[in-house]
Amino acid sequence: MESGNDTKQKLLDVTRQMIDANGIDSVSMRDLGKEMNLSRSAVYRHFKNKDDLLAAIVTENFDVLINRLRELFGEIDDPRKLVSEMLYTFYDFGIKNYEHYQLMFIKQWDKSQYANLHISAFELFRIIYKCLEKAHEQKLTVSKSAKQLTAMGSAFIIGLVELNSAGHLESEKGFDDPTGLINSFLDLIFKIPPNSQSGLF
Amino acid sequence: MESGNDTKQKLLDVTRQMIDANGIDSVSMRDLGKEMNLSRSAVYRHFKNKDDLLAAIVTENFDVLINRLRELFGEIDDPRKLVSEMLYTFYDFGIKNYEHYQLMFIKQWDKSQYANLHISAFELFRIIYKCLEKAHEQKLTVSKSAKQLTAMGSAFIIGLVELNSAGHLESEKGFDDPTGLINSFLDLIFKIPPNSQSGLF
Repeated sequence: MESGNDTKQKLLDVTRQMIDANGIDSVSMRDLGKEMNLSRSAVYRHFKNKDDLLAAIVTENFDVLINRLRELFGEIDDPRKLVSEMLYTFYDFGIKNYEHYQLMFIKQWDKSQYANLHISAFELFRIIYKCLEKAHEQKLTVSKSAKQLTAMGSAFIIGLVELNSAGHLESEKGFDDPTGLINSFLDLIFKIPPNSQSGLF
Repeated sequence: MESGNDTKQKLLDVTRQMIDANGIDSVSMRDLGKEMNLSRSAVYRHFKNKDDLLAAIVTENFDVLINRLRELFGEIDDPRKLVSEMLYTFYDFGIKNYEHYQLMFIKQWDKSQYANLHISAFELFRIIYKCLEKAHEQKLTVSKSAKQLTAMGSAFIIGLVELNSAGHLESEKGFDDPTGLINSFLDLIFKIPPNSQSGLF
């Protein structure tokens, strides 16, 4: 017989399939029960409502994204390259998992009821912050605090994902090359290294 | 007897009330007809479906926001102050009209069916671009094209609105002072005027 944890994980996996196939709105506790041949009460034993179910998915997603960023932190030494890879990974995750990204960053989650989601979001923010702090300590960034740079960088990436997903990708607006834009943003926050300034004269 | 245009405008006004009271999802052609004592076919004479109705609202909203930005363009001479006011006005509009903002910038609108909405979005972008071009010509901005700066600025504002609306406003993340962040962003894209550099030495 399956353990409760196995069932819980299967409920999450099927929910994920529902989201990926037909979007967040298509998820229902009733359909989930039907799909898994479980009674209504059996489903509710694991998740007390749809938001609880979605929150568990969001927790999994934050874990995936945070682990990816942590790996980068371990792999890349150069601060600019590190921030660049992190922002791009964040952007790419949003574009490739737009429904999940919306649950993670756009949906309002009650802070007292879903405190762990706010902790996860903060952890994500903290990893980007740590990279920018490292760059800041090495005097590689402009004279803004690492916190401000992290806030600006996160808002910029969130906006890029939204505009891209809504189809504002016309080259006339400059959104057709997100990688180039991310690089331009890094040009704004990282000082020009002395040996590449020769072109200015 | 009311003209067709009066009826159409009243349908839009009632739709706006529905959105403001209970959100976009609460809008229905059926309820709209009931509310205005109109037959189903009378409503459908003006709007062929809910998206058509919403698109007309979005067009009105773009007109309002674009006119506000145009006024600023006529009123403010200093390029940095102008860009600052524009970005703040854009941000403020998003925060105060979040449901409408989502329809304008986040919802996917088919480009062939709703071409005029894409023209409006582009017009909004073009006004911000014009200010940044002016600043660029006066050599006040860093060495990025006005188009790139407009794209980065727009993405940054869209992200700020989203993060603010989703409740990511904790001071630990640096999002508790959006005005300060907008100013910091302007610090990144505008060169420091020579007379304020003395503090560096």
